[in-house]
Amino acid sequence: MAAPGSFERPHRPGEHEAALPDDRRSAIRLAALLLFATRGYLATTMADIGAAVGVRGPSLYKHVASKQELLAEIMTGTMARLLAGFQDAISSTDDVREQLRRAVEAHVRYHAQHRFEAFVGNREIANLAQPARDLVLRHRSDYERGLRRLIERGAAEGVFTVRSAQLASYSILDMGIGVAAWYREGGEFSVDQLAYQYGDLALRMVGAAPQRHQSPA
Amino acid sequence: MAAPGSFERPHRPGEHEAALPDDRRSAIRLAALLLFATRGYLATTMADIGAAVGVRGPSLYKHVASKQELLAEIMTGTMARLLAGFQDAISSTDDVREQLRRAVEAHVRYHAQHRFEAFVGNREIANLAQPARDLVLRHRSDYERGLRRLIERGAAEGVFTVRSAQLASYSILDMGIGVAAWYREGGEFSVDQLAYQYGDLALRMVGAAPQRHQSPA
Repeated sequence: MAAPGSFERPHRPGEHEAALPDDRRSAIRLAALLLFATRGYLATTMADIGAAVGVRGPSLYKHVASKQELLAEIMTGTMARLLAGFQDAISSTDDVREQLRRAVEAHVRYHAQHRFEAFVGNREIANLAQPARDLVLRHRSDYERGLRRLIERGAAEGVFTVRSAQLASYSILDMGIGVAAWYREGGEFSVDQLAYQYGDLALRMVGAAPQRHQSPA
Repeated sequence: MAAPGSFERPHRPGEHEAALPDDRRSAIRLAALLLFATRGYLATTMADIGAAVGVRGPSLYKHVASKQELLAEIMTGTMARLLAGFQDAISSTDDVREQLRRAVEAHVRYHAQHRFEAFVGNREIANLAQPARDLVLRHRSDYERGLRRLIERGAAEGVFTVRSAQLASYSILDMGIGVAAWYREGGEFSVDQLAYQYGDLALRMVGAAPQRHQSPA
């Protein structure tokens, strides 16, 4: 795409990238995220990413080594933030019911506020090269297992009642992931409303929320 | 890809497509589904589809007009089957609680048994041309609204208790859609087990399932 020597060309501000924000790396990452989310990873070229931020090929490669590096950064970053949010939730209290509520709220907030990251993360795993792919898959597995063990602990403590902690955790994670597909800022629900209501739904799912109606069955 | 005249070439069995099942159209549709699901619609060519079923371009076009026609068939077919399943569920009984259970079971069964269709349906909507795209979007909207109104009716009858019927319906649909991403036949859960447990979870979400534990809060 560019002659190898071009990579070493010193940066000359204003030459081709006058419109870039100060943090070029962030702008490039954001452009890649938008293009991966809208066109897909395979259909996006480094030239497309460069064009979106007004940087020509040679200059672009001073900031980022490859399209694959950008994909890995987006996907590992997503899992790191989800895992950190879960850790914060369960280390914030010893009450398993409140731990679950906070973990679900964090999960839903992330998916409402990082819709493109979630979309790319769910769609492009097959296009992620090693070792990043295994890392992301391991982190996903850790994340699901963390939620499942939380539910199992709540059941052991007699606070939750579940037939299968695994299916409860899958359901809760999937309904939160779904938020990324339909949520729109400025729509009917604020992120807070969404987080609270999904937290309540999750507590109901594990049998730990008061229910006004008792079914006749 | 092929000379126009070739489209008219009479079919000669055994020439290039000896390995095809009797119903060529079905085999082509299945090959397209697998390729769209694994490679993506944009990265799949009609030649790829033909190669997968052992049919050369000219012969392939006797059975199907275009890649777009195959995508439209997959996506409109998915929504038609989901809508039919929902209709069967709500017309099978007048008990709103049982209607919801059956609708959720049908939704989950479809997504466990048609994983590739669900995957393509969720990923390729942007690549679907008009008028099929609007049709699929309208059917999706009808499907969600049907579930939401069922939940609203249950709430009006005093059987369900929900803060937002819309968020309850989104959550229930999304957790079922998620099944298509992780479910594996021959794994820990049968389709029946999955359907029953998701039905129970949905009833809990709308406050219509008995819960052994009453939270202290």
